[in-house]
Amino acid sequence: MSNLWKVSADKFVNDKETIMRMGNVYQIANGYMGYRGTLDEFGPDELVGITIAGIFDRVGDSWREPVNAPNGGYTSVAVDGKEVSALTTPIKEHSQTLYLENALFERTTQYEASGKILTVSSTRFLSAAVPNLGVIKYSIVTDKAASVKIKTGIDCNIWDLNGKHLVDLQLEKNNDALLVHAVTNELGKKVAAVETIAIDFGKHNHSIEANKNLHIIELDTEAGKTYTFYKYFSVVTENDKVDSVKDAAAKIVEDAKAVGYENNLAAHNRQWKTKWEYCDVIIDGDEEAQQALRYSIFQLLIVAPVNGSANSIPARALSGQVYKGAIFWDTEMFMFPFFLYTYPEKAVELMRYRIKTLDGARRKAKTESVGFEGAFYAWESQDDGDDACTYFNIGDPNTGRDLRTHFRDKQVHISGDVAIAMWEYFKLTGDDSLLLEGGAEVILECARFYFSYAYFNKNKNQYEILDVIGPDEYHERVNNNAFTNMVAKATFEIANAVVHHFKQHYPAALDTLVKKINIGNELPLFVEAEKLLYIPQPNNEKVIEQFDTYFKLKDIGIKELKAKMIHPNEYLGAGQGLAVPTKVIKQADVVMMLNMFKDRYSKDIKKANWEYYEPRTEHGSSLSACAYAMVATEFGNLDFAYDYFLRTAKIDIEAKYKVYVGTIFMGGSHPAANGGAWMTAVFGFAGVQATATHVNINPRLYKKWNQLTFNLIYKGDRFAITITQSTVEVVAAASNKTSHTFIIAGKSISVEAAKKITESIA
Amino acid sequence: MSNLWKVSADKFVNDKETIMRMGNVYQIANGYMGYRGTLDEFGPDELVGITIAGIFDRVGDSWREPVNAPNGGYTSVAVDGKEVSALTTPIKEHSQTLYLENALFERTTQYEASGKILTVSSTRFLSAAVPNLGVIKYSIVTDKAASVKIKTGIDCNIWDLNGKHLVDLQLEKNNDALLVHAVTNELGKKVAAVETIAIDFGKHNHSIEANKNLHIIELDTEAGKTYTFYKYFSVVTENDKVDSVKDAAAKIVEDAKAVGYENNLAAHNRQWKTKWEYCDVIIDGDEEAQQALRYSIFQLLIVAPVNGSANSIPARALSGQVYKGAIFWDTEMFMFPFFLYTYPEKAVELMRYRIKTLDGARRKAKTESVGFEGAFYAWESQDDGDDACTYFNIGDPNTGRDLRTHFRDKQVHISGDVAIAMWEYFKLTGDDSLLLEGGAEVILECARFYFSYAYFNKNKNQYEILDVIGPDEYHERVNNNAFTNMVAKATFEIANAVVHHFKQHYPAALDTLVKKINIGNELPLFVEAEKLLYIPQPNNEKVIEQFDTYFKLKDIGIKELKAKMIHPNEYLGAGQGLAVPTKVIKQADVVMMLNMFKDRYSKDIKKANWEYYEPRTEHGSSLSACAYAMVATEFGNLDFAYDYFLRTAKIDIEAKYKVYVGTIFMGGSHPAANGGAWMTAVFGFAGVQATATHVNINPRLYKKWNQLTFNLIYKGDRFAITITQSTVEVVAAASNKTSHTFIIAGKSISVEAAKKITESIA
Repeated sequence: MSNLWKVSADKFVNDKETIMRMGNVYQIANGYMGYRGTLDEFGPDELVGITIAGIFDRVGDSWREPVNAPNGGYTSVAVDGKEVSALTTPIKEHSQTLYLENALFERTTQYEASGKILTVSSTRFLSAAVPNLGVIKYSIVTDKAASVKIKTGIDCNIWDLNGKHLVDLQLEKNNDALLVHAVTNELGKKVAAVETIAIDFGKHNHSIEANKNLHIIELDTEAGKTYTFYKYFSVVTENDKVDSVKDAAAKIVEDAKAVGYENNLAAHNRQWKTKWEYCDVIIDGDEEAQQALRYSIFQLLIVAPVNGSANSIPARALSGQVYKGAIFWDTEMFMFPFFLYTYPEKAVELMRYRIKTLDGARRKAKTESVGFEGAFYAWESQDDGDDACTYFNIGDPNTGRDLRTHFRDKQVHISGDVAIAMWEYFKLTGDDSLLLEGGAEVILECARFYFSYAYFNKNKNQYEILDVIGPDEYHERVNNNAFTNMVAKATFEIANAVVHHFKQHYPAALDTLVKKINIGNELPLFVEAEKLLYIPQPNNEKVIEQFDTYFKLKDIGIKELKAKMIHPNEYLGAGQGLAVPTKVIKQADVVMMLNMFKDRYSKDIKKANWEYYEPRTEHGSSLSACAYAMVATEFGNLDFAYDYFLRTAKIDIEAKYKVYVGTIFMGGSHPAANGGAWMTAVFGFAGVQATATHVNINPRLYKKWNQLTFNLIYKGDRFAITITQSTVEVVAAASNKTSHTFIIAGKSISVEAAKKITESIA
Repeated sequence: MSNLWKVSADKFVNDKETIMRMGNVYQIANGYMGYRGTLDEFGPDELVGITIAGIFDRVGDSWREPVNAPNGGYTSVAVDGKEVSALTTPIKEHSQTLYLENALFERTTQYEASGKILTVSSTRFLSAAVPNLGVIKYSIVTDKAASVKIKTGIDCNIWDLNGKHLVDLQLEKNNDALLVHAVTNELGKKVAAVETIAIDFGKHNHSIEANKNLHIIELDTEAGKTYTFYKYFSVVTENDKVDSVKDAAAKIVEDAKAVGYENNLAAHNRQWKTKWEYCDVIIDGDEEAQQALRYSIFQLLIVAPVNGSANSIPARALSGQVYKGAIFWDTEMFMFPFFLYTYPEKAVELMRYRIKTLDGARRKAKTESVGFEGAFYAWESQDDGDDACTYFNIGDPNTGRDLRTHFRDKQVHISGDVAIAMWEYFKLTGDDSLLLEGGAEVILECARFYFSYAYFNKNKNQYEILDVIGPDEYHERVNNNAFTNMVAKATFEIANAVVHHFKQHYPAALDTLVKKINIGNELPLFVEAEKLLYIPQPNNEKVIEQFDTYFKLKDIGIKELKAKMIHPNEYLGAGQGLAVPTKVIKQADVVMMLNMFKDRYSKDIKKANWEYYEPRTEHGSSLSACAYAMVATEFGNLDFAYDYFLRTAKIDIEAKYKVYVGTIFMGGSHPAANGGAWMTAVFGFAGVQATATHVNINPRLYKKWNQLTFNLIYKGDRFAITITQSTVEVVAAASNKTSHTFIIAGKSISVEAAKKITESIA
């Protein structure tokens, strides 16, 4: 397999930081859980982590964060009585590979131990077919006969950022299976991890040592002979809604063992084949871009929620407990589009997560500040939709004090981001079942929130959205942030459109909903608000002011600003941050708006704002570069767009990101940037934009690229798109139910099922 | 004269800090200028300052501040060739006295110089009859015959806080007069200082030395003989609207010299006799309180603006350039009432100052933030009404950075404070000429400002005042500050009342005004706003929330909070100050409102709020204690009221205040606290409150006090009030034009001219 389908290393670098970063790069996941790319013999100090999606815990006053499961993938080996580990044993050779095709992690290490060479190989995957299941094939071979002791089982020493989340651990063995049962500290949710092995050599014992539940396998190896066994491990939590988490976990490994390694792998591979059929993007002529983009897509695919889970994707995905495992606006704005255009059965789970947490958003609206109406979605959302974001969310290294930030109470655009995604789902899938099952309620409650948050300016006869933070978090508590106001306006538009759609198609459902949430009197107000909500307009230079008075701020270069820093980790925002009184912004804000609402603004305006804001943007967020890249494609600055595309796409494969803010560890993967990379390729360079009625394709392929190939799903029908420098080819799947309109470089074409159309472009 | 009419010291303490503090305690002033209580031979290092009212200058980017005049009071003496100074010469005896009766500063010092004893005596006053004039009687005597050289004239070495404000200095002698002419750095305003002496001994020469314009007087003294001469010095600026500042200044000293010392003093004393007749308060039974209160009144009298000047009183009066010589809300809220009740010809100047600076307030409204309508008075107002307050007004000793504060852009209650004072003037004097000469325009423009600043909350059907700072400056950018909202509501009420009054009495003037400022369409909106402006109401515990969400802040003790300070001068407010996330407040805010609007709240509510907020108040402003004291008298906590009354009244006489905030010098007098002391005595303990229709007297005399005697002027008629523990006596002046209603402890009495009434009280 070409290196465009894998990531590999041929040596082991024994330092903590590299181990941490490689743990991110080589992680595997299956939506239910993630498993960091650490070696079999590693423990919590090397940040081994099996992070479970959708289950959270809090210890004392510390941050609430996702629960890491006991590590059923643990194995260590001793040769002639001496335990072997990559941390302490001389290594003759080491290689490790992550296979993108099917999310397989493989490692082979030759240890020089007791004057002999022990080769350890393992292959691990988290089943894409059985969400709770992990499978490992583990082999050893010694170059000389040796006395070998293998310890394999479940390591209950868990890497936790903020406290010990699993308590009341019970470690036991039942028949062939090792079992661990625990409950979460805060809510007492049951968690079970079970492991069993299929093995045909050695003498076996059971032992519980140093908080590990272990099979002890002793054998005298023959020189050169390979000894292989298979591990099946499972994690089940109370969220899985089973009668007994322990029995369910045991059953899963029992079944997996019965089926055998190859069959488990085959089932897993079948799932992965589909994923790539839906989602791959092929860039011909640019291997660097190809690998980075594919790796980015891979990162999204491994964390796509399990069907029916109503889970979403945290900002650091399943790479650990970083950022509290919380779901931010990142998911709707940067990940959701990828799934919506390629894999809507995953997109719908992201939306179901917001429906599931609507009550949390209502609670937040009622209790935040003076209390508001409707749904104010959490800035950092966990299982229940309550906000995990703290009011003092950043430490100041200059004073050692925690800084009051307003991410939680003022970043109100989150509700509109949710409403917009909800409506996009309907527009692009044509499927209004999501609206009926709660999506419409979400949208109306978001509009209601904005109405209660907005103020009316009688002098100017307009609604205004005051005291917010836009995407540029360096400027807190601003008025009429262009991005936020536009998102709020869109929310009113969508609420009004939902009402219209329901009136036409589901009058009874509308009636029920209106009564349920008692919103009848407010609906006319949403119509007024859509009309009278103030949207900052371009000035004479076509530049839109990011918020009221932004143009009055000090215009200072980013370098000049940073030269004033006292501590390298000091935060530039919050009350007295260095950027606050200046025009320096953290990330795309107006430009993000121009990208989100690209239909509403001319190329000229996009260019003017891009040129105004880009030099003032610190790109202090991994979300920033791709927004600038996408807008740059629209007005033809493709070199810049390409540069920022690569920067975005390579973030996780290169793993050179900053991992500490103050004293807070924030290392982990960047699924939003991964989504941004995909968007830049498909929305940016390929110029794809689907609407309720058609799909636009306005390619502006980068000069280096011969051909860009990808698949799309639109209103449930599938298309393969191939773009060259001179042509656009659209192939409709034979199974498509109907024809769809494509507007290719301005030309409207109806594409019927099984039809292939090819258009020349200038 | 009893020590209740003077402040004196019988030794000289030779350290910089004491010299600075004594400079404040012993200062004299006459409204036109202040002269710090420094010795004749002192210079800028000892903070000699002749601060002129109403003329300001700015150097470069430094703070704009008042101009200090060249020191025409300078005299030094050399004995047998050796110059004598309190800083370097051994002192045998020293005494200095400030006479409160007529603002005379007197010093006598016996120096041991060249084996002889030189006694220097001087008496200085700034004429209360001729504002530009200063007069000094200076005497020497030696115990043995000595060769003495006196240098006397104008010292042009000026103490300036922020830069050299007087440039192009010309020093010359013309006939007997020494002349200095200069212009201000920024606006080139002409300033002249002239000095002449009346002397009948010695040999005379003219000399310019070390930037001093001097008479050199040489004589051989006879032992024991007193040699006395008289200095007449003047300051005239372009603001005085004379043809030639130099000629005018020369004429003033020429005239003064012609009149002679005793006649000048007599004219001065006549003025002072009237001042005390109007304004003295006599506390029988408490000399400590008597002295402190009289000194406070003295401080107000010396800085009362010159009639016709349209000047106001800065926060540090005329004691130097501190606080930029700026006029704050302090003047209207804490000084104006004293003048209004005792000396309205001074009160009217304070109001004329606001009329004069209305255009500045309009400019500020237009340019601050997004721009507003109407008049937004400057937080720190100087000659033109533009705001001298900087956006980064406080230095942070922890980081060395300037902190962004919002005093300038968000402390919007200032406009209402002005409007309220303007209306009070009319209510209590019955004189509506001030309204006609611009006061009505000020009031309408202030209402217009609030209307443009306010937002309408459609969900709650109310106007709200968002994003402000109330008097408690530790909490910036708050919504619906109770104080501010009430002040805004009062402004709407007053605007509506002005319109009503003009409609009845001056329809043509109203018509002209409405047209001039094009406000016709807005008048009905002010009526709506008066009705629908949200005023925070008492909760179940009768406590009014200081602003939206105040009750959600952390409840931490002041000591506990201060224990967290890293630097003793660190500011507790601004973006990330320690008090910001807590309930700790800088000064009275809700309690201040309850005091200002005492008619609108019950005793119960006053008590509940007082008890809630007092323990949470740091009293970090000299304005705080008296507000708490006044409210405490209303619900009977007289011990507390007395304690805080004394604290307020003694601030300047004791001079123990903090003089540095960070690196910024803020030493000087506290006329607002002085006014607060008077208010606490008269409004608090005597329970005086005048309305448009009558004067209330509800005494609650402190137990220690036998009798409290003071004078009031109401609707132009004068009354002497004497309150004992059991009686209230009101004596109406014989010259009163009409009878007035007094409501004494609830009993309504009509008091005719020349009549004396005595009422028993419980």
